[in-house]
Amino acid sequence: MQPDPHPHPHPHPRPVPAAAPHSRPERTSVAIVGAGPAGLLLARLLDRAGVDTVVLESRDRAYVEQRQRAGILEQATVDALRAAGAGDRMDREGLPHDGIELRFDRRAHRVDFPALTGGRGVMVYAQTEVVKDLIALRLADGGPLLFDAEVRAVTGADTDRPVVHYCHEGRERTLHCDYVVGCDGFHGVVRNAVPDAVRTTYERVYPYSWLGILAEAPPVYDELIYAHSARGFALASMRSPSVSRLYLQVPNGTDPADWPDDRIWDELDARFAVDAEPALKLERGPVTAKSVLPMRSHVTEPMRYGRVLLAGDAAHIVPPTGAKGLNLAAADVIVLARALTAWHATGSTAGLDTYSDTCLRRVWRAEHFSYFMTTTLHTDPAQSPFDTRLQLAQLDRVAHSPHAAAELAENYTGLPIPD
Amino acid sequence: MQPDPHPHPHPHPRPVPAAAPHSRPERTSVAIVGAGPAGLLLARLLDRAGVDTVVLESRDRAYVEQRQRAGILEQATVDALRAAGAGDRMDREGLPHDGIELRFDRRAHRVDFPALTGGRGVMVYAQTEVVKDLIALRLADGGPLLFDAEVRAVTGADTDRPVVHYCHEGRERTLHCDYVVGCDGFHGVVRNAVPDAVRTTYERVYPYSWLGILAEAPPVYDELIYAHSARGFALASMRSPSVSRLYLQVPNGTDPADWPDDRIWDELDARFAVDAEPALKLERGPVTAKSVLPMRSHVTEPMRYGRVLLAGDAAHIVPPTGAKGLNLAAADVIVLARALTAWHATGSTAGLDTYSDTCLRRVWRAEHFSYFMTTTLHTDPAQSPFDTRLQLAQLDRVAHSPHAAAELAENYTGLPIPD
Repeated sequence: MQPDPHPHPHPHPRPVPAAAPHSRPERTSVAIVGAGPAGLLLARLLDRAGVDTVVLESRDRAYVEQRQRAGILEQATVDALRAAGAGDRMDREGLPHDGIELRFDRRAHRVDFPALTGGRGVMVYAQTEVVKDLIALRLADGGPLLFDAEVRAVTGADTDRPVVHYCHEGRERTLHCDYVVGCDGFHGVVRNAVPDAVRTTYERVYPYSWLGILAEAPPVYDELIYAHSARGFALASMRSPSVSRLYLQVPNGTDPADWPDDRIWDELDARFAVDAEPALKLERGPVTAKSVLPMRSHVTEPMRYGRVLLAGDAAHIVPPTGAKGLNLAAADVIVLARALTAWHATGSTAGLDTYSDTCLRRVWRAEHFSYFMTTTLHTDPAQSPFDTRLQLAQLDRVAHSPHAAAELAENYTGLPIPD
Repeated sequence: MQPDPHPHPHPHPRPVPAAAPHSRPERTSVAIVGAGPAGLLLARLLDRAGVDTVVLESRDRAYVEQRQRAGILEQATVDALRAAGAGDRMDREGLPHDGIELRFDRRAHRVDFPALTGGRGVMVYAQTEVVKDLIALRLADGGPLLFDAEVRAVTGADTDRPVVHYCHEGRERTLHCDYVVGCDGFHGVVRNAVPDAVRTTYERVYPYSWLGILAEAPPVYDELIYAHSARGFALASMRSPSVSRLYLQVPNGTDPADWPDDRIWDELDARFAVDAEPALKLERGPVTAKSVLPMRSHVTEPMRYGRVLLAGDAAHIVPPTGAKGLNLAAADVIVLARALTAWHATGSTAGLDTYSDTCLRRVWRAEHFSYFMTTTLHTDPAQSPFDTRLQLAQLDRVAHSPHAAAELAENYTGLPIPD
């Protein structure tokens, strides 16, 4: 006979001894796997609500603080960072943007976000900077954050005493907790704690990638430019007033070595070219990073199984064209922090019970928007001239119909995070 | 040496002797090929502006008056028919509709057209009734309208004296004119007068068809219902308070004989089913027509070559999901009638010179909308579960976002016809 897995039910949260700074506690209330923006923001929000957490990150600090990811924060993400006391440097160094420019058919059209959304905008502030800020706060607070802590498995998801098994400093360890949150990204392991029988996966892989560069060159445009062209998609973004972030649609499997800097700059200029103005060439500068990003849509349902919860890329991936990945992750953990805080305070699991459905509805909206932006702006190698004309008709509609423009602006600046 | 094709330039319209009723004139000002709604409305508009026309139709009158086509008139089409004195029976027998219902995920959502568009709606009045009304007016006015007149070719498109070659009552005939307008549909011959070298064709064929029935059964719903379901798309429309027009998505190549009446009714009920209300079954009645309609998008550019102009299905086809085919045809001939009237009055070809560009921009908008409605509501046999979730996310957005709903409503009720 199997031993009863629930010998001592704990309907209410158990008191947890406070962890010493930089300690490696063996139990906590909420184990957070992954020190990306989702895991770190969740830890910050729970910390301020008095809920004990331990953050386990498989990589080292330098890696986490340097990996290049997204750079556009929705209004709700900005608000949440400020409310969490993590917005000081963002407010000093971030670049508020009130619109984007669409280029197609060799014409330029601005989409004015505040005018279309009742005052909302976005903030250009790199995910890597958000991560640095949140790590610094976490370490200053003394909350446990273990780098090089590689999670092997989560067991007991369907009990009230889940356990995280991980390796740290060469030894296998365990972390006992009330809840485990997988913020460990698309390749994370926490998702595996959800049995295959209850998991449904939705996926689409796109027939193109992005070649992204960072360049020490001032952006010549004030706002982001999304360009549809016969040569393929291009995006001009920025990291700061002196650093440009630029992307080119390239075929899947492209080797960045085939794209010397001059070829990249020439191609960017060609794709951004318009008829109406004197050709504004990008300012060129040293390329400090160059990489190829595949494009994928992915959703795992549900986002909760027992005492395991998934957030951010661990549960859903979007192609980057809609700038939604980081913001979806932030929305997930805002909803989740509220639910865990309520559970911690009252023992109610109501918020946890609805967490998955609440987030997934917003996730699917963002999945659709990201798909829309991606397929409207990129050239599919298999697309017909008819398909190209449909893209141009849709872009022309956004440029000329207030409702179509508002639909883009509302989605881009971000839909409300449900209460 | 070739003879000069322009021995006597005619910069201004030439006077044309008035044709006797039911005559077979050998010349006219505007030769109109095709007595569908485009050709007949154009003839009516030009007749009232004092421009001579001859209409040549390859089929007999009974065929033209009975073929089942579209049934939804945009506000602008309604206005044009009224202004042309062709709206009396439409206003008596047509059914004004102020919205449609979308069904998906076993839920129903109404799209309120006037509230979303500042008061616009549509009129349910079958194309075949529009055709009957316009034929009756044409014959009453005595304007030449030849049935069983099969056009073989149009020559001289790039001269100022084009000639229509046709066969009538067993003999080959010619009709000399200033302009030829091809309103002869997708399979028409006038388009062939535009040389291949200057013609571009855009096309998409969809991997499903509609099985459409006419039934002597009162519609149980007040408005049209567009249903997305796991079983495929269905549409409940109507022709009158006692005649239903119903459609089911079926595979291409479906034989209507495989769909006995009971199977059709059962399948319609299953696709319209929702959870929230007691299942409202369609009222069943004798099925008086049953046919399979393929789904195609097609655009030919330009819509003008020399003295040949194309209008309606001769230039563009849309899948029927957006109810745009008849309305695009009406818009084309409204723009064209204005241009030909101005040319007739002043000799100016300004309106004719811009005719193609003016119409094509609106055509591509409608092509996109029709594609959007079609691909959002139908189940592609190749679609993935991810694609299905995107469809549902988009439909959910239309149901809950005022801008997304307005975007659908504006396109459905019809965009303004350019001045």
